[in-house]
Amino acid sequence: MKKEEKGKIRIVDIAKMAGVSIGTVDRVLHNRPNLSTKSREKVEAVLKEIQYQPNRSASALARSKPLEIYAFIPQHAIGTYWEDVIKGMQHASGEYSDFKVRTTIAYYDPYNLYAFEVSAQQLLDAQPDGVIMVPTEPHYSRKVVDKLNEAKIPHLFIDSEIPAYQPLAFFGQDARKSGYFAARMLMLLNPMHEPLLVFRKIYAGISGSNQQDRRQQGFETYMTNKYPDVPIHYLDLPAMQPDEDELMLDRFFADHADAKVGVIFNSNAFIIGHYLAKKNRSDFHLLGYDLIKQNINLLQDGHIDFLIDQSPKKQGHLCVQTLCDYILFGTKPAPYNYIPIQLVTHEILDDFIQSEMEYD
Amino acid sequence: MKKEEKGKIRIVDIAKMAGVSIGTVDRVLHNRPNLSTKSREKVEAVLKEIQYQPNRSASALARSKPLEIYAFIPQHAIGTYWEDVIKGMQHASGEYSDFKVRTTIAYYDPYNLYAFEVSAQQLLDAQPDGVIMVPTEPHYSRKVVDKLNEAKIPHLFIDSEIPAYQPLAFFGQDARKSGYFAARMLMLLNPMHEPLLVFRKIYAGISGSNQQDRRQQGFETYMTNKYPDVPIHYLDLPAMQPDEDELMLDRFFADHADAKVGVIFNSNAFIIGHYLAKKNRSDFHLLGYDLIKQNINLLQDGHIDFLIDQSPKKQGHLCVQTLCDYILFGTKPAPYNYIPIQLVTHEILDDFIQSEMEYD
Repeated sequence: MKKEEKGKIRIVDIAKMAGVSIGTVDRVLHNRPNLSTKSREKVEAVLKEIQYQPNRSASALARSKPLEIYAFIPQHAIGTYWEDVIKGMQHASGEYSDFKVRTTIAYYDPYNLYAFEVSAQQLLDAQPDGVIMVPTEPHYSRKVVDKLNEAKIPHLFIDSEIPAYQPLAFFGQDARKSGYFAARMLMLLNPMHEPLLVFRKIYAGISGSNQQDRRQQGFETYMTNKYPDVPIHYLDLPAMQPDEDELMLDRFFADHADAKVGVIFNSNAFIIGHYLAKKNRSDFHLLGYDLIKQNINLLQDGHIDFLIDQSPKKQGHLCVQTLCDYILFGTKPAPYNYIPIQLVTHEILDDFIQSEMEYD
Repeated sequence: MKKEEKGKIRIVDIAKMAGVSIGTVDRVLHNRPNLSTKSREKVEAVLKEIQYQPNRSASALARSKPLEIYAFIPQHAIGTYWEDVIKGMQHASGEYSDFKVRTTIAYYDPYNLYAFEVSAQQLLDAQPDGVIMVPTEPHYSRKVVDKLNEAKIPHLFIDSEIPAYQPLAFFGQDARKSGYFAARMLMLLNPMHEPLLVFRKIYAGISGSNQQDRRQQGFETYMTNKYPDVPIHYLDLPAMQPDEDELMLDRFFADHADAKVGVIFNSNAFIIGHYLAKKNRSDFHLLGYDLIKQNINLLQDGHIDFLIDQSPKKQGHLCVQTLCDYILFGTKPAPYNYIPIQLVTHEILDDFIQSEMEYD
C-alpha cells in the first residue's frame, strides 16, 4: 500500500517562510491595520504558494460589525431562473452566518434603463461592503461600476460579463460558446437540414439580457460556418403582451410549416413548449435554457428536447462565498469563472436537480 | 428594494428548542460521551430542522488524535481517471487539515479478486476511522463490507454502487442511466440507422468494473426499446495485451465496414481514438467516458465526438468531506449522491476542465 498525505502548516512556519514576525502573519490573516505593503506582499506570496486554508473562526471572532452584501439582479416573476440564483446566495450567506454576513437582494427593471439607474443609486446609498450584480446594457452598467470603484466597494458580475469593466470576478456561462454548442445540438436533431426557428422575447427593441443576445450570436456563428444554406427564421414575442403569443406563434408556424426544429435563448422555452403541447405538435424539436419548473415539466412530457442548465444555485452560492472570502480573508478569486454548459434531456434530468439541491 | 436575510442561531437557542441543557447540545455537537439516546435524538432533530452549520473549529480543538481515512481504489496507470479522484480527495483532506485528517490511498488489483481480499485485509488491519471504497465484484466486496461493519468503521462507496450493502452513502453516476443516455446521443449521430460498434476491455472474462457493465446494460435497454432493428457488434480487447489491439481493430472494422458509430463504456476511448487517427478515419463517430488527457486530445482533434464526464475530482472531494463531517460532527449524508451525466464536446470542453480545477 502506498501512502499519500498532506501535512499541516502553522503560522510560525508561514512567518519563517516569509521572513517576517508571527505578528505580521497574524495581521495579514485577520486584515488588521498597521502593516507595510512590503510585509503584506511577502506573506501573501507564501500563503498563495502553500495554498493556505484559513482557520476561519479566528477572523470571525475579530470582526464586530455585520458584513453587508447586496445582490443587484433583474426583477422577475415567481418560479423563474433568478429565484434559484437567490436561493444559492442565501445558502452561502447561511454558511457564513458566523461572520455576521447579511445578503440583501436589490432588484432592477431589466426593460427600463432609467429605473435601473435609480435602483443602482439606492444600492450605492446603502454603502454595502460588497456587491454582486447582473450587468445590463453596457453604458448604464458602466456608470454603476464607476461609482462602485470610486466608493472602493468590491463587486462581482454574475450571469453576464463585460470584461472591459474588470470586476473582481465573473461567474456565469460563456454565452457565445453556449449558443455555438446549442446550434451543434440542434443540427443533430435536424439531419434533413430543414429551416431553423429562433424565438425571442423583446420589449421595445430591448432583449433585457446580454446573455440572450450573445447566445444568439454564437448560434449564428456556428450556422454561418457549418450550415450557411440552412434558413433561419426569427420571431419576436413582446415581453409585456403574453396574450399575443399564441396568435403570433400560429402565424409563424403556418408561414414556416417545413421547420421542425427551434430554439429560444432564455428560460422562456415553456412558452413555446406549452404552445406545442396545446396544438399536439409532437413532431417539433425544441431547445431552451434553464431547469425552471415549467420547463422541466415540458422536458418530461417530450415537448422540449434539450435544456441547457447553468447551475443557478451554485452560481449564487459561489458569488457570495467568493465575495466573503475576499473581504474577510483577502482571498483573490480567478477573474473568469465559467460554469460548464450542461445539456440536459429527460433521461438524465433528476441528477442535475439533485446536484443543485446541495445549495437549498 | 426588498430585503431577504438569514439570522444566526446560537447553542442556547438550540437547547431551548430541543428542551435540553446547553451542556447536552455541546455534547452532541462535539461527539462527547455520557449522553442518552433520547437527548441525542432531540438535539439532532432540531439541528436538522434548522439546518445547523457547525462552528467547526470548536470540534477541531477538542480532537487530539489524527483522523485516518483510507480510500480503497483500483490500481491504475499514471494519467488515468483515478488520479483525478485522488486529487479531489487530497484537496478535501487539505481543507480539513485543522482537524488532523489524514487520507491514505490503498490500491487493489481490479482483475485479481484474490489479491483484492489480501489488500482489503491490510486495509482493515490499519484500523482506519473511515473508509471510501470502489466496490469490485459483489461477492468479494460483501466480505470486506461485513468486516467494516463488524469493526464499526463508517464507509462510503464511490463510482460503483451495490445498494443492498447499505454503505453510509454512495457517490457516483447512475451507470444504467448513463448508458441509456449514451445510446440516445449515439443515435443522433446515426440518422441512417447503421450498425453500432461496442468496444470493451476484458481480462479473463472480467471487465474489472461494475460501472462499465451497467452502462452497457443501460445502452442495450435503450436500443431494444427504441431501435430493435439496429444491429450491435461487440469487440473485446484484452486488458493485458495492448499490442494486440490494432490487429483486432483492423479485423473488426473490416468485418463491419458499414458501421459509422461506436462506443466504449470507460475511459479507454483513446485506444479507439488513436487507432482512428492513425488510420485517418474521419468518418467514424465515437462516444467514450472521462476527460483524461489522452481523451481530451482526441476530442479536440475530432476523433472522439462525445465524452461523458463524471467530475472525478469533485467526487473524491465530496467523499472525504462527507466522511469527515460524519465522523467529526455526526452529519448524516444523503444515501445516494448521483453525479450529473455531463455530455462534453470539443466546443464546451474548457469550462468542464476549469470547473474541476477548484479541487486541485
